[in-house]
Amino acid sequence: MTADNLTRDPASQPRPVPSGSPANLALCQALFSPRCVAIVGQSDDAGKTAGRPLKFLRQMGYAGRVYPINSRRESVLGERAWPSLAALPETPDHVYIVTPTEAAVEAVEECGRLGVKVATVLADGFAETGGEGLARERRLRDVCARTGMRLVGPSSLGVVDLRTRAMLTANAAFDEPELPAGRIFAASHSGSLIGALLSRGKARGVGFAGLVSVGNEVDLSLGEICATTLDDPGIDGYMLFLETMRHAETLRRFALAAAERGKPIIAYKLGRSAAARELAVSHTGALAGEDDVADVFLRACGIARVNTLDGLIEGLPLLSRVPLATRGSRKRVGVVTTTAGGATMVVDPLAGRGVTIEPASAATLAQLAGAGIEVKPARMVDLTIAGARYQTMKSTLDILLAAPEFDLVLAVVGSSARAQPDMTVRPIIDSAGAGKPLAAFLAPDAPEALAALSRAGVPNFRTPEACADAIAAALARRTPQPIVARSATRAGNGGPMLDELAAGALLERLGIARAPAVALDAAVTRTPPLPFPYPVAVKLLSAEIAHKSDIGGVVLGVADGAALLAAIATIRANVAERMPEARVARVLVQPMVSGLGEVLLGYRVDRDVGPLVMVAAGGVLTEIERDRSLRLAPIDVAAAHEMIAEVRGLIPLTGYRGKSKGDLAALADAIVALSRLADDSSVAEAEINPLMVRPAGEGVVAVDAVARLVM
Amino acid sequence: MTADNLTRDPASQPRPVPSGSPANLALCQALFSPRCVAIVGQSDDAGKTAGRPLKFLRQMGYAGRVYPINSRRESVLGERAWPSLAALPETPDHVYIVTPTEAAVEAVEECGRLGVKVATVLADGFAETGGEGLARERRLRDVCARTGMRLVGPSSLGVVDLRTRAMLTANAAFDEPELPAGRIFAASHSGSLIGALLSRGKARGVGFAGLVSVGNEVDLSLGEICATTLDDPGIDGYMLFLETMRHAETLRRFALAAAERGKPIIAYKLGRSAAARELAVSHTGALAGEDDVADVFLRACGIARVNTLDGLIEGLPLLSRVPLATRGSRKRVGVVTTTAGGATMVVDPLAGRGVTIEPASAATLAQLAGAGIEVKPARMVDLTIAGARYQTMKSTLDILLAAPEFDLVLAVVGSSARAQPDMTVRPIIDSAGAGKPLAAFLAPDAPEALAALSRAGVPNFRTPEACADAIAAALARRTPQPIVARSATRAGNGGPMLDELAAGALLERLGIARAPAVALDAAVTRTPPLPFPYPVAVKLLSAEIAHKSDIGGVVLGVADGAALLAAIATIRANVAERMPEARVARVLVQPMVSGLGEVLLGYRVDRDVGPLVMVAAGGVLTEIERDRSLRLAPIDVAAAHEMIAEVRGLIPLTGYRGKSKGDLAALADAIVALSRLADDSSVAEAEINPLMVRPAGEGVVAVDAVARLVM
Repeated sequence: MTADNLTRDPASQPRPVPSGSPANLALCQALFSPRCVAIVGQSDDAGKTAGRPLKFLRQMGYAGRVYPINSRRESVLGERAWPSLAALPETPDHVYIVTPTEAAVEAVEECGRLGVKVATVLADGFAETGGEGLARERRLRDVCARTGMRLVGPSSLGVVDLRTRAMLTANAAFDEPELPAGRIFAASHSGSLIGALLSRGKARGVGFAGLVSVGNEVDLSLGEICATTLDDPGIDGYMLFLETMRHAETLRRFALAAAERGKPIIAYKLGRSAAARELAVSHTGALAGEDDVADVFLRACGIARVNTLDGLIEGLPLLSRVPLATRGSRKRVGVVTTTAGGATMVVDPLAGRGVTIEPASAATLAQLAGAGIEVKPARMVDLTIAGARYQTMKSTLDILLAAPEFDLVLAVVGSSARAQPDMTVRPIIDSAGAGKPLAAFLAPDAPEALAALSRAGVPNFRTPEACADAIAAALARRTPQPIVARSATRAGNGGPMLDELAAGALLERLGIARAPAVALDAAVTRTPPLPFPYPVAVKLLSAEIAHKSDIGGVVLGVADGAALLAAIATIRANVAERMPEARVARVLVQPMVSGLGEVLLGYRVDRDVGPLVMVAAGGVLTEIERDRSLRLAPIDVAAAHEMIAEVRGLIPLTGYRGKSKGDLAALADAIVALSRLADDSSVAEAEINPLMVRPAGEGVVAVDAVARLVM
Repeated sequence: MTADNLTRDPASQPRPVPSGSPANLALCQALFSPRCVAIVGQSDDAGKTAGRPLKFLRQMGYAGRVYPINSRRESVLGERAWPSLAALPETPDHVYIVTPTEAAVEAVEECGRLGVKVATVLADGFAETGGEGLARERRLRDVCARTGMRLVGPSSLGVVDLRTRAMLTANAAFDEPELPAGRIFAASHSGSLIGALLSRGKARGVGFAGLVSVGNEVDLSLGEICATTLDDPGIDGYMLFLETMRHAETLRRFALAAAERGKPIIAYKLGRSAAARELAVSHTGALAGEDDVADVFLRACGIARVNTLDGLIEGLPLLSRVPLATRGSRKRVGVVTTTAGGATMVVDPLAGRGVTIEPASAATLAQLAGAGIEVKPARMVDLTIAGARYQTMKSTLDILLAAPEFDLVLAVVGSSARAQPDMTVRPIIDSAGAGKPLAAFLAPDAPEALAALSRAGVPNFRTPEACADAIAAALARRTPQPIVARSATRAGNGGPMLDELAAGALLERLGIARAPAVALDAAVTRTPPLPFPYPVAVKLLSAEIAHKSDIGGVVLGVADGAALLAAIATIRANVAERMPEARVARVLVQPMVSGLGEVLLGYRVDRDVGPLVMVAAGGVLTEIERDRSLRLAPIDVAAAHEMIAEVRGLIPLTGYRGKSKGDLAALADAIVALSRLADDSSVAEAEINPLMVRPAGEGVVAVDAVARLVM
C-alpha cells in the first residue's frame, strides 16, 4: 500500500473503530448530542430545503445553542443570523452546511480552521459529477487530514438524534408534530430513505434513537458512524439501508463489535439487479460490486439482509429474539394457524428460501390431543376444526413453543385477528414469554391487534412477504466470521500475471495437486522425451495471454511425438494469425487428465470486501446460471463443504441418480488451501480452471491455472 | 370420455359457461341477488360461526326475505326460527347451510327435493378426509345431477354481494360497521382470505361488488361462479386467490370471456414451493400441480399473476390501464423520481423480472431541458437536483407520458409525498389522464396522498415490492391464447405405452425426423446387413420398459457385426439380471447420431390444464435447475421460438461465446409439430429424449422417444 494509494483510495485505508475511547465519545457527542450547533446557509424560508434545519431544531425543542449563519440577512425565521462561522462567540461542536456546492467546500475549510469537531455537508456535486467533483472531494479530505475534523457527507440529508433533539437535517420527513423516540439507530446511503424509515416506523410504532444519511462517505463511513454509538445504552439494534459496499471494512468491524454486544443489525441492500447497480453508480459515484459478493459479505458480518422494505422496518424485534446461528444449526419453523390459506402465503416464500416448515411430531400431536385440541397430522397445525378460541390457541402455542422439533414458531391468524383479537391474538401475547422465538402474521387488516403485539414486544408483520423475509433472514444470520485476513491487502488493477507454470508452482506451495507439466521451447524441432506417456495436451505458455484457448493456443489429445511437433506448429500459426503482436516462446506439455467433473476455483481480492474464494462447476452453463458459491477468505474445511453444497452444478458429483461420487473431501481441502492466499499480500487473484475432481479417494488435480500479483 | 369417468372425475366434464343466457341470469340472481334466502342451522349465538349469517344480513340491511332454520329453537337472534326447509311458506332462491357435515348433506338433499336454485355449504369433512368424505361428495353431486340445483362448496365460507347485501357468509371479517361496495368481484379457494381481501381493501379504499369462497368446488367451480357475473355492469374486474388449478377449464373459459369484455383478472396463486403445494393438498383434498404449469396456464388465460398480497389488492387499477400485450410487444418503463434510493427499490425487483427500465432518449432530455428541468442522462429521470416543485414534476410527467420510448411511466416520490403532497403528488393526479399508464409509489408512509391517488383512479402502491410485482404482472399480461385443443382430451393414468419403434412412427407422422432404425429379433445369431454404416447404437425395444438405460438396456458405439451380437447378448444378460420378469424379444439398432446439443421435448395432457408442450436442454443439470419452458398446446412457430429463448441451457445453441449455432428453426418446427398432438385425442403423453440439434441448416433428429396412449 503506497502513500499514493492512500490519497487516491481512502476506502482502502484501515481506520480505527473508536469504541468507548475518549476520542469515540467525543465524536459521538459532537454527532448526536452537540452542545452547540451552527447551520451554514440557513434560509429564512422554512419551505425551502435550506430553511428546514432551524425550523426542525426549534420545533422539536433542541436544548443546545444554535447559530444560524446567513451572510445576506440580519435574521432568519425570526432569529438573529450570524454573518460567518468566524463571527460566532464560540466554536460549534457540529456544523450543518446547507449551502450550494462551492460555498460548502469553503465552509468546510473554515470549520477546519476554527476547530469544529464535525461538519455535515448537504450539497451534492462531488464524486458523482466526475473530475471537478473529485477535486472538491480531495479538498474536503485534506481539511480532515490536516485538522482532525470529521465530516459527514457530502450529499448528507443530515444527522438526527431524536432523544437530544439534534435535528441536523434538511429532510422534509422530519416536519412532524410528533416523532416518538425509540431504541433503533438507522443509517442510510440514501438521504430520502431516512424519511421513509421514520414515517413508516411511526405508522407501526417503531421508534428511532437516531438516524443518519451518510452521503458520499468522503470521511466518516456508515460503519464508523454506527460504531460511535455501540456503547449507547439507549440503542438496541441497527437498521441499515445500503446502496453500495463502499467502506465494507469499517462496516465489518462495526458489525463484529455490535454482535459482541448482542445488538442485531438488519440491512436492506439495493442492487440485486444489474439495472439497480447501474443506478447506484450514477447517483452516488460509487462503483457497485456484484450482489452475491454483498450477500456473502453481509452474512460474514452477522448482518441479516432482508429483501423487502417492510421486512427492514418490522424485522428487528424478531432478530433480537433469534439466537445467532452457529454453522449447521437448524432452521425449523412450526406453524400454527386459523387460516390455512393465509399461513401458506408465508410458508410459500419461506420454503422458497430454504427454511424448513416442520410438521408437529407424534409426541406434540399427542400433547395437543391431550389438551383436547383436534388437529390433523400435517405440515402445519391448522386450528380451523378446533376453532378460534383463546384457550385453544394458548394451549397450542405453549405446546409448540416447548416442542423440541421447532426453532421458531409462527402464528398466522385469520379474520378473528380483526374481529375478535381477544380470542386469537391475546394468547400470542400471553405465550410470547417462552424462550423460543414466536412471530405473528395477521391475514386481515388488523391495525389494533398489530399495535397490541408491538407494544408487547411480539414480532409481527403486515404482509406475508415481509414476514417470510424477516424470518428467513433471522434464521440465516450467523455468528460473524472473525477478521483474520491481512486486511490491508487490496488489489490494484493491472499487477503482473504469472504464466501457467508459475501459477502452478504457487498452487503447489499451497498444497493443491497439479497435473505434471513440462515446458518446451516453442522453436523445438525434435521431440524431447516426456516424463509421462502420450496422449498429451499442448498449451501456449505465456503470462501475457490469459485466454489461450480463444486464440487457438491449446491442442488436446496429442498422440505421439510427431503430433506434438505438429501441435506446436499449429499453436504458433494460430497465435501468429490471431494475435500477431504476441510472442510464442514456450509451450507447456501435460498428460491428458480426466475426472468425474470439472470445477472452477477462484480467489480474488475484491475492491470492496477484500479476499474472496469462489467455487463453481466448470462449463458454459455455470456462467449463464451464475451458479457459484462465494466466501470471504480464508475459510475452514466445514465452510468449504458448505460452498460445495451450494453449487447446483456440483450435485452430480455427490452421487446424484446413481452417478459415481467425486472426491469432495479433496475438493474441500483445495478450496481451503486456495483461500489461504488471503494471508499472502502479494497475490491479487488466482484461478484454477479446470480443477479435475476424480472419484472419491483419488483426489483433485489442477489442470490449468492463472494468477496475478498485486501492483 | 366414458360415463364412468364423468361420475368419477367431474373436473374433466366440460361445462357450458352460461353468459347472458336466461339460465345464467337465473343462477347469477340466485347467487347474488336472491329474493328469499334460508339459513339452515342458524344459531342463536351471534358469536358463533353458525350465528353470523343472520346477524350480517340484518346488520347490512338485506332487503329480501330471510328464513332462519333451527329445529331446536322457536327463535334465533330475536327472530322466528323455522323447524325445517319443508315448513317454509316459499322456496328460497339460495340456502346457506351452516350445520355440521352429516346434517349438511341431508339439508342439501332436502334443498334438491324442494327445488331450491342454489345451496351453499359451510361444513368441511369431504374430499380432504378421504373415503367417507368422497362418498359424501358423491351424494352432493347426485343431488345436483338429479335436480338441476347448483351448489357452492362444501367448505364455503360464503357468498356475498355488497350491493344487494346478500351476506350469506360465516366469515367474521364481515362483522364491520361499514363495508363500502365497489366494482371488483373477488373469488377465493380460501374462505379466510375473502376476509383478508375485504378488510385490506377497505383500508385502501378498494371496494367489492361481491366476494365468494368457493370451497371444494364439488359442483360450481370458481370459474363458473365468476362467469355468471361477466355481464354485470357493476363489475369492472376480478381478484382471484387460487390454491390449486382444479377446474382449470372453466377458469380458462371465464378468463377468455372476461378478456373479450375488457374486464381484467388479477390472481395470486399459492404453490411456488413444494411445501406450499403439499399444504394445499392436505387442506383442500385437491392435488397440486407443478407451479410452472400454473404460471403458463394463467398466462395463456390472460390472467395477471402476482406474487404479493398487496400486489393482488392494489394491482387491478393498473391492469385496467395497461393494454393486453400481443406477442413481442415491449415492456419499457420510464421512471421519474425525487428519491433515487426509493425508486431503485422498485427498479431492482422490476429488472429482476425482465422489465426494461428505459432511459430517457436524447429528444426527451432535450424537451426536459427546454422546460427548464435539469436532469443528468441516466437510467431514470432524477429530479433531486431540479427540486420537488409542482411545475417541475408536472412538466416532467407530461413529457415522459408523451415520449415514445416508454410503455408505462412510474413516478416515485420521497418525503415530500407526506410533507408536501401538493408539490409532488398532485401533479401525478393532474397528469394521469394521458393515454399511457402512469403508476405511483410513495416512499414514506403517506396515507393521505395514497388515498388522493386512489380517488383519482391513479394506480398506487404502498410497498416497492407490490409496485414492482403489479407492474411486471401487468406488462406480462397477454391476449389470451384461444382454446383450440380438443378440450375433452384428458389422460387417464396407465394407458398403454408405445415401444420406441411405434413412438418413432408417431413422430414421423407429425413430421419430426427420427434417426433411421432397424428392429432385430433379440435371438439373432448371425449379423444381418444394416441399411446404415457402423458404429451403431443397440437398444432394448420394449413397450413395457420406459427407462431402458437404467437397467443396462443400451449399448452405444457398437463398431461392427461381432460387436453388435455381443451388445445384444449384454443387453439380454443385463435385463435378465436386473429385471428378470421382463422379456427381451427385440432390439433396435440405429446409427450413432451426433449434434451440437441435446434437447428434451415433451408433450402431455395435464390433469388440470390439459395439453402441454415442454422444451428443456438435455442432461442432468436441466433437471436440477428445473430449466424448462412450457406452453399450452398446440402452439405456433413464434411461440416455439419464445420457448427456446426461455431455456437457459439452450443459450449455447444460439452462438453464445463463439460456439456454432444450432438449427433452432428446425427445433422450433419440431416443437410445433409435437404440440399438434393436442389435436390427437388418442395420445396421453410423448417424449423425445434426446432430440439432437445439428448445426444451422442441418435439422434436428429424434434419437429416442416414448409415447403413451390414453386409456
